[in-house]
Amino acid sequence: MNNFEYLGYAAGLLTTIAFIPQAWKVFSSRKTRDISMTWAVTMTIGVFFWLCYGISMGSLPMMLANGVTLILLAVILWVKLGS
Amino acid sequence: MNNFEYLGYAAGLLTTIAFIPQAWKVFSSRKTRDISMTWAVTMTIGVFFWLCYGISMGSLPMMLANGVTLILLAVILWVKLGS
Repeated sequence: MNNFEYLGYAAGLLTTIAFIPQAWKVFSSRKTRDISMTWAVTMTIGVFFWLCYGISMGSLPMMLANGVTLILLAVILWVKLGS
Repeated sequence: MNNFEYLGYAAGLLTTIAFIPQAWKVFSSRKTRDISMTWAVTMTIGVFFWLCYGISMGSLPMMLANGVTLILLAVILWVKLGS
């Protein structure tokens, strides 16, 4: 694994961790009034595309980070659509 | 440019656009009380690492998307540190 791969894992870890408080807050409070549907949908489609792009580049850091972020966003969207 | 490159550009466009309302709201209102410093710092470092990783992968979509997102996050951090 080259040095830059570590960079990708570090980047993925940080930007995914940054999502967890928001996803946890939504999951535990079931309140999504302050979350914009446009933001949630735009990010979900965007992160899904990054996941496909990561697969096409054979980049494991991108696949892992965007895969987990996609799940967190799906939780937010699921609660938002349900409320 | 292969088809997957378009995917990278579409992903970058969406996840960057998703940041603009938040950055604009902070820039115009100068209010950052509801924005977590931990989130802002974690995302800024993470996006900076993605930018470096994109450069190492020679991925123009990653460079452009993370470069613009880094500027938007810098605006949010700048206003937050100033308030």
